[in-house]
Amino acid sequence: MELQKPYYAVIFTNTRTEGDNGYSQMAEEMEKLARKQPGFLDFESARDGLGVTISYWESLEAIANWKSNMEHREAQKNGIKKWYSWYKVRICKVEREYEFTK
Amino acid sequence: MELQKPYYAVIFTNTRTEGDNGYSQMAEEMEKLARKQPGFLDFESARDGLGVTISYWESLEAIANWKSNMEHREAQKNGIKKWYSWYKVRICKVEREYEFTK
Repeated sequence: MELQKPYYAVIFTNTRTEGDNGYSQMAEEMEKLARKQPGFLDFESARDGLGVTISYWESLEAIANWKSNMEHREAQKNGIKKWYSWYKVRICKVEREYEFTK
Repeated sequence: MELQKPYYAVIFTNTRTEGDNGYSQMAEEMEKLARKQPGFLDFESARDGLGVTISYWESLEAIANWKSNMEHREAQKNGIKKWYSWYKVRICKVEREYEFTK
């Protein structure tokens, strides 16, 4: 069940600091901006205490470009300064997948 | 920044059916059971509408063993019958990671 076209996932797991401090607006803008990037495939996000956001990309190059996007870099700086008490980023190669729909 | 010991992630993204129907108890039991399996590394989960659960494993073999665990297979059957309206499972190789702590 190997994928014919392997693709990549960025798993961003995090815990927030207290208060919004512009976080919600930034999160919305970053999702919109990510969706416009070359090589973007999909975006999944959930939070209940722990936040887990996963973006999917066609290639490592697309991920590197998104990481160095100027507006995204600004958000990353504020993430460290204001919004996150902890985060972990994992770059993964999606090797297999299967899906169920009722 | 390649990992010296690459490891694997199972990304389980899902949407629930209406009502609990024993789901919460099962989810708790499955997390406990997963944590006891050989090759288990970590577990992260969040839900707000969309549910995202990621388990981390030392090897593909450990993932295959967990998938075929008898109690887990029973939960998988009920997942399809009762608990999930949609899910997607992705098996990924974690190739790089970095972490921030305030």
